[in-house]
Amino acid sequence: MTTDSTLAIDGPRFWSTVMRSGQIGPGKAGGLRRLALTDADKEMRDLFITWCTETGCTVTVDRVGNIFARRPGSDEHLPPVLIGSHLDTQVAGGKYDGIVGVLAGLEVLRTLDDRRVRTKRPLELVCWTNEEGARFTPPMVASGTFAGVFDPDWVLRLRDDDGKVFGDELKRIGYDGKAAVGGRPIDAYFELHIEQGPILDRETVPVGIVTGGYAVRGMHVDVHGETAHAGPTPMDRRRNALVGASMLAVAVNEIGWTYHATEGKATVARLVAWPNKAGILSEYAQLTCDVRHAEREVAERMWAEVKAAMADCARRASVEMSVAGEWQFGSERFDPGCVRLVREAAKSLGVRHRDILSQAGHDAYYISRIAPTAMIFTPCRDGISHNEAEHAELDETVPGVNVLLHAALARANR
Amino acid sequence: MTTDSTLAIDGPRFWSTVMRSGQIGPGKAGGLRRLALTDADKEMRDLFITWCTETGCTVTVDRVGNIFARRPGSDEHLPPVLIGSHLDTQVAGGKYDGIVGVLAGLEVLRTLDDRRVRTKRPLELVCWTNEEGARFTPPMVASGTFAGVFDPDWVLRLRDDDGKVFGDELKRIGYDGKAAVGGRPIDAYFELHIEQGPILDRETVPVGIVTGGYAVRGMHVDVHGETAHAGPTPMDRRRNALVGASMLAVAVNEIGWTYHATEGKATVARLVAWPNKAGILSEYAQLTCDVRHAEREVAERMWAEVKAAMADCARRASVEMSVAGEWQFGSERFDPGCVRLVREAAKSLGVRHRDILSQAGHDAYYISRIAPTAMIFTPCRDGISHNEAEHAELDETVPGVNVLLHAALARANR
Repeated sequence: MTTDSTLAIDGPRFWSTVMRSGQIGPGKAGGLRRLALTDADKEMRDLFITWCTETGCTVTVDRVGNIFARRPGSDEHLPPVLIGSHLDTQVAGGKYDGIVGVLAGLEVLRTLDDRRVRTKRPLELVCWTNEEGARFTPPMVASGTFAGVFDPDWVLRLRDDDGKVFGDELKRIGYDGKAAVGGRPIDAYFELHIEQGPILDRETVPVGIVTGGYAVRGMHVDVHGETAHAGPTPMDRRRNALVGASMLAVAVNEIGWTYHATEGKATVARLVAWPNKAGILSEYAQLTCDVRHAEREVAERMWAEVKAAMADCARRASVEMSVAGEWQFGSERFDPGCVRLVREAAKSLGVRHRDILSQAGHDAYYISRIAPTAMIFTPCRDGISHNEAEHAELDETVPGVNVLLHAALARANR
Repeated sequence: MTTDSTLAIDGPRFWSTVMRSGQIGPGKAGGLRRLALTDADKEMRDLFITWCTETGCTVTVDRVGNIFARRPGSDEHLPPVLIGSHLDTQVAGGKYDGIVGVLAGLEVLRTLDDRRVRTKRPLELVCWTNEEGARFTPPMVASGTFAGVFDPDWVLRLRDDDGKVFGDELKRIGYDGKAAVGGRPIDAYFELHIEQGPILDRETVPVGIVTGGYAVRGMHVDVHGETAHAGPTPMDRRRNALVGASMLAVAVNEIGWTYHATEGKATVARLVAWPNKAGILSEYAQLTCDVRHAEREVAERMWAEVKAAMADCARRASVEMSVAGEWQFGSERFDPGCVRLVREAAKSLGVRHRDILSQAGHDAYYISRIAPTAMIFTPCRDGISHNEAEHAELDETVPGVNVLLHAALARANR
């Protein structure tokens, strides 16, 4: 690969789009609360499309709301090189998670326009719907649908915690597109994302070359007990679903600590109970948990311990527990060819870099199932993410965007 | 006391009112879901007032929605003897809890009418608002206001879990009465209630003479942690409020088991977390718990253990915990004079009876602070309550209603 090292993005222009995005859907403490398919999401999508149209791209929206902005190649018969990430956030999210990846892609297109660079293959910039899963579970649902993992009609029927339907909300904000979801060849996919961990920040390395992901196994657990009076019911006649779910929450957390030395994690992120009122024992609870480890075999061992804890807690709390939904991701290894392009771009540009594994879920996981894929990580302060205090610096992000530019360009011209 | 043992209630008539009530606000499984200040509560209240008016009573409603049906005495200058309970239920409640007490009072008035019995003192039948606390916390809030424990204006500003306001809902169903809440002399208060425990049913004793209550101490605990990504955040940097709350839930339950041999109970009835979503650690949780024991000193010891567990769980989960609200009740001992009237009525009528302590909260606790009070328990099958399977039999309930009739009559004529 020969790299024209004079080809570089416009850092301040790129950052101005990130800052403009940071005004749409403000949280309480300086971050963002821009849940998928809300009015704020619509406002951001509209602005994003305006920006894409200004670069001369053709914009299409598919049935689950994924937005594609296409920049033609000299050979339009070739499949496109895809760049992208997501613009939705957690309920207490930051201004960078997902967003810098989409807007880095926009900046790549703008830079190519500035220099009148024509690529052989078309480039497409994508914004995936509802990556966070903060509003509609599961996360990464729309990229997963693009990759053929989920059925579009099933996705359109998903409900949020208030009972609102994905398809209705998509229509409400005007993003119920007509394009089929996926089912077309993609030459390659590149995604830039903040690390969401502390490694790059601690080592002051601006670029992480993501070789793959932590193995993740997660589930929703249904807990069934029985309502009874919180007062006179003897302890040995209680079947409090909330107690069973709490026991499992504690056990899962302890499993995380058992594997802490090797950077394993186990998380209880969600627990709901019903009736969940003073004076009455709950007959139902649901708990959402997962385990993560760099080594698949260890993740499997952790998962077996969670399953054993489930049986143990059910017995101790005199409740029934069953798996209401189970998932796994992150065992994907990214495409060696695409990863090599990223590494070569970093070397050619003289950017410090290191290999790294992703510990979070990303749209790139699903896309890697249908197209050669690579990811680039950029630093975030203290590794803090999914918190309004999430922070990234322009200077530490620009090198990654230039690496993205050159890697995508090399792939599109090969 | 001389008892005219030919004076007896009309069992089938009484039961027909209980069965009619059982049709208003049906649950899913044969019980009731008649939360305070809902349309179903209004329908029941309207019917109750119709019944009271038919007996010739004068009905008044106070500012927090308590309904009083007054049957004049021969000396209207004397304070009334009050009989009553509540008509609201839990979200998964039975057809008897509270309801049989109010309708037993109605049957007492009807029986006195049938026999043209005039009492010296006036009798008042009361339906207390929102006893369960299933919609608006705390429970027994309206009888507590009558007893001067809560400020009426504070009560009118309470919100349910959907943010709806007590005062607005009271007005919406037309029960925002004009009468002042309490502040007037009451000669005595009698409340009949199902036991909500297994003792009377197990011993086939139809009447429990309640001498007092279990000592109860409860609280809401606020848990403050920090949001963070559920993936990459190392275990030792997590401050998951949901984990802290779950640890405390498990600890409280274990304290209940420690005192199980002496019939102690410890309960976690409610746990909420925020954001409580997949992919993010929760920054906030709130847990509602209580302990109950027949001996106040033991309840205090249990409570000290809960407080110690709170500090321990906060430390282990790296979160902060604080008390957001604390309450106690049940240490009241009922009035020896009123209790004696109940016991003498049972003896005169030849009804099998035993002394018993209440383990649940009742309006009678608060009223006992301002008036001589006694309670009568009737059996419920297997002690099941706050469950739609709650069940009582007419034959096992009638003796208690006759005891109520004679005790109240004796008090009103003394």
